[in-house]
Amino acid sequence: MPSERRPRLTPPIADVRRAVRGVLVPREDAPLALVALSGGADSLALAAGAAFEAPRAGWRAGAVVVDHGLQPGSSQQADAAASVARELGLDPVLVVRVDATAAPGGAGPEGAARAARYAALDAAARDAGAELVLLGHTLDDQAETVLLGLARGSGTASLAGMPPRSGPYARPMLGIRRATTRQACLDAGLAPWDDPHNVDPAYARVRVRERVLPALEDELGPGVAEALARTAEQLREDEQAFAEQIDEFIEEICEPAEAGIAVSVAALAANPAALRQRIIRHVVASEFGVALTRRHTLEVARLVTGWHGQGPIDLPGCRAERVGGRIEFTAR
Amino acid sequence: MPSERRPRLTPPIADVRRAVRGVLVPREDAPLALVALSGGADSLALAAGAAFEAPRAGWRAGAVVVDHGLQPGSSQQADAAASVARELGLDPVLVVRVDATAAPGGAGPEGAARAARYAALDAAARDAGAELVLLGHTLDDQAETVLLGLARGSGTASLAGMPPRSGPYARPMLGIRRATTRQACLDAGLAPWDDPHNVDPAYARVRVRERVLPALEDELGPGVAEALARTAEQLREDEQAFAEQIDEFIEEICEPAEAGIAVSVAALAANPAALRQRIIRHVVASEFGVALTRRHTLEVARLVTGWHGQGPIDLPGCRAERVGGRIEFTAR
Repeated sequence: MPSERRPRLTPPIADVRRAVRGVLVPREDAPLALVALSGGADSLALAAGAAFEAPRAGWRAGAVVVDHGLQPGSSQQADAAASVARELGLDPVLVVRVDATAAPGGAGPEGAARAARYAALDAAARDAGAELVLLGHTLDDQAETVLLGLARGSGTASLAGMPPRSGPYARPMLGIRRATTRQACLDAGLAPWDDPHNVDPAYARVRVRERVLPALEDELGPGVAEALARTAEQLREDEQAFAEQIDEFIEEICEPAEAGIAVSVAALAANPAALRQRIIRHVVASEFGVALTRRHTLEVARLVTGWHGQGPIDLPGCRAERVGGRIEFTAR
Repeated sequence: MPSERRPRLTPPIADVRRAVRGVLVPREDAPLALVALSGGADSLALAAGAAFEAPRAGWRAGAVVVDHGLQPGSSQQADAAASVARELGLDPVLVVRVDATAAPGGAGPEGAARAARYAALDAAARDAGAELVLLGHTLDDQAETVLLGLARGSGTASLAGMPPRSGPYARPMLGIRRATTRQACLDAGLAPWDDPHNVDPAYARVRVRERVLPALEDELGPGVAEALARTAEQLREDEQAFAEQIDEFIEEICEPAEAGIAVSVAALAANPAALRQRIIRHVVASEFGVALTRRHTLEVARLVTGWHGQGPIDLPGCRAERVGGRIEFTAR
């Protein structure tokens, strides 16, 4: 193992290490955690934190660098990040080249790059036998995600931001400001790479970061990013509670219908609006793979709460109709 | 009754009337609805809508103008608004003068003026025997309220915005843009008054309106205000669902304790985090009149979910302590 860097323990370095410690539950069997490393301040600070904490918790820490090939020199940049990871003592250090333009589209260039990145991380984790993939998203990323979700306005689900854990992915730094990760790098003598995409105003996220959040902080005072992150945390809990409640009774209130599924009107009526609408969205999503808008969801709900003999409602991918004591969802 | 104005029925006028119709459920006993009228575009359009719709639904429509006396000429402005209300056929038309500086403080000048206004509206409704007080808040006001709540970051409750109904108060125009109310006034030949406070950047709400929302719309595209209003609507439903659920079982899981109240650890543990934390906040609010912050709430929750023998937790106005199978909240 290369010599471990021993930076002076400054508060930013301590913050990052404490955050990493929170996800590396002590183990005897030396599982592998891979840091998704771009070379930017966030993931570089995370890589340094993981290099320090992993051996102390009985983990191995490696890194995976995804080269999107979206700009000249990206390959050299990826190799440079990999070198730093090796110097930090991470092992294995993988470099994966992806072609974002070949990714399944529909979500614009940001969505395509994102889908390609996660596919590459999934594959790297599988190939390397990693139990965890550590992502460098910070409190600032979370606040930006909430604001982007607000603009879409699809409610709790879009405001709840990024989960701290999801499958093999962990985001230990959602409580840490981006500036802290940068300072942690500087304190450790690490030179973070500034991705030019991070200041390209063609990206909505960049505009939120560079213009919207600063405007909010200017006008409403500091602490807005923290407030957005707290909001995300609470809304995620809310969404989770509703999901658990629905899981408990969804099977009882549904039954197969011809070319679809039917839900009991009485059960929908007995639940408060928040649950009724989530049941409708849940049923349509799981049966037809379609995410209903609020407008469509409310229209279906009115088959229960405002019933006056309405006809079938055409929805994306299916149709809803009240037939006796049931709402039937059938393929179109 | 003075002659009813008969403006050309334009789409903005129709939108406002339809919104008013939504709250004036047809009646036989001629109840009174009072429009809270400032003379600004929102409440003026609402007054015109109520004057038109009330008689058709078996209601009487009146108006109450609150003069805060905060600026020179406010009294003449209030009288002018009252005159227009009478011309519209509203009856009775009340003008109430309040002294906002004498209102219970603690919430800054905006909060004090608000408290004084609602106290005056309460009294006017009582004195006039009104069943409803119609408020002119628009979709834009709702979006601003959500953004102001976001900056505080106390979660669903602060993001849920203003309720469409609360006691005698109804806000029929939460689905209508402010610009639509202005156009409805112009179409009806009514000249709205522009309150100078509405452009005074000393007010956080004005800064949100003039700077934050436009920045959001510029950077994220139009539709942000509508998205914020939809979000408020959904979060209000969520909050309502949790409140109903807690109401159903709160008495079973609580019992009196010496100088306070105790909650079953088992019951708190059996609920998802969203409900557990709301139970804690609910108990402390109803027993000690204190709204716990998220940080405090989570600290209390850890007496359940992360129990390792912690001592009592000092909270504003009370103290929480795990004693056997109960969390005891006692006065400090």
